[in-house]
Amino acid sequence: MKARVTVTLKAGVLDPQGKAIVGALDSLDFKGVQSVRQGKVFDIVLDDLPQDKAKKQLTEMCEQLLANTVIENYQIELL
Amino acid sequence: MKARVTVTLKAGVLDPQGKAIVGALDSLDFKGVQSVRQGKVFDIVLDDLPQDKAKKQLTEMCEQLLANTVIENYQIELL
Repeated sequence: MKARVTVTLKAGVLDPQGKAIVGALDSLDFKGVQSVRQGKVFDIVLDDLPQDKAKKQLTEMCEQLLANTVIENYQIELL
Repeated sequence: MKARVTVTLKAGVLDPQGKAIVGALDSLDFKGVQSVRQGKVFDIVLDDLPQDKAKKQLTEMCEQLLANTVIENYQIELL
């Protein structure tokens, strides 16, 4: 079974990477870009499991490895 | 207006980062993980534009900066 985990910075957490991208976009003449915030996406293939078990396992994966829960949020989608 | 750009590796492109994550998950006793592929997600805030113009601009941003179109695919969502 397939799942997608999206990990993004929490609001208020500074994103120097995003700032650098805004600068680069500006130097490429893209006007009107107010902000960019970069995150990570993980496409995961798991052995088949009941949905609730899969969600629980994926949540544990996020809590332990995929996300730094101090500064990041995560979102789990079963595909 | 807000948009989300998701950039993922094309099929067949090796993902050493993803492989390392599979190994780490295994060492954390997560069983049944067949594969992990890591990508990037950009949450962009733009000045208001007609949707078609915004999509065109975002496509250009991907082509020029946000994605390496030789090895990556990108997906644009207007939120």
